[in-house]
Amino acid sequence: MSIERLETGPRMSQAVVHGNTVYLAGTVSESPKGKSVTEQTKSVLSQIDALLKKAGTDKSKLISANIWITDMANFAEMNAVWDAWVSPGNTPARATVEAKLATPDYKVEIMVVAAK
Amino acid sequence: MSIERLETGPRMSQAVVHGNTVYLAGTVSESPKGKSVTEQTKSVLSQIDALLKKAGTDKSKLISANIWITDMANFAEMNAVWDAWVSPGNTPARATVEAKLATPDYKVEIMVVAAK
Amino acid sequence: MSIERLETGPRMSQAVVHGNTVYLAGTVSESPKGKSVTEQTKSVLSQIDALLKKAGTDKSKLISANIWITDMANFAEMNAVWDAWVSPGNTPARATVEAKLATPDYKVEIMVVAAK
Repeated sequence: MSIERLETGPRMSQAVVHGNTVYLAGTVSESPKGKSVTEQTKSVLSQIDALLKKAGTDKSKLISANIWITDMANFAEMNAVWDAWVSPGNTPARATVEAKLATPDYKVEIMVVAAK
Repeated sequence: MSIERLETGPRMSQAVVHGNTVYLAGTVSESPKGKSVTEQTKSVLSQIDALLKKAGTDKSKLISANIWITDMANFAEMNAVWDAWVSPGNTPARATVEAKLATPDYKVEIMVVAAK
Repeated sequence: MSIERLETGPRMSQAVVHGNTVYLAGTVSESPKGKSVTEQTKSVLSQIDALLKKAGTDKSKLISANIWITDMANFAEMNAVWDAWVSPGNTPARATVEAKLATPDYKVEIMVVAAK
């Protein structure tokens, strides 16, 4: 099966397409400083939309998602953005746990796998 | 490749089947309040059995597992239930780390990928 | 699709090959006691190289990686070893979060998926 890499840097690629499966990197908000959980989640999901498009697919083909939030008190706020974003009837398998992220400015990180 | 979703809700699906690979959501105990780690792990694995069956497969075809426990002091207690449950000779690749889960009542969450 | 398991124990397999996709277990350092983050990361990546080889592939075919470190203060030190190890132009999708691991001696755990 073919391997295609997108936005490949010296540390990671933002997406790797293996055959018909698309693996995205853990995505965090752009310019997170001072941004709310709502704003950061919107930024993350917008970047995921763009990466899925580059990979030739979209959120209606999501397979699974791993979500990390730095404070479970923000679970409902993150979910409100998530629930408005997902494709009705096409929601992925998902797990959300609490974890500290690369810098204290980040409040949410999402890593998805999709079909194409 | 085909995509089949099981128990699809507005936020997530409990399982997504992509071709010959089955991705389950992170599964937590039913009615977790006051349940021990042993009881919660049994509840989680019983739900995983049921989801794998609905997806047309079973635990002998597990590929990988991610386990989160809220206190690494419970590692041995979770493992005792896990070790008794897995299909001998057919154990998956696995990683277990500590993380806070969606509510303080939950002590263990397990997310698996299986073949079918 | 075929399922092949490598180094299968009663709790987990160190690698599971499903068709053309290789799933490794979360890998931690051998003899971690007193070892630095640099030393532990080198041990982990060396074991991953060996497992990928047994599975018939190598790091140039990495698809995705999940990394857990016990203290985000060690992010740069882990990354220095990672960056020197990866195959240039062939870096995987990756996510790194902070989590406590199975014993306090472990400072880093890495779980990868690769193509073959």
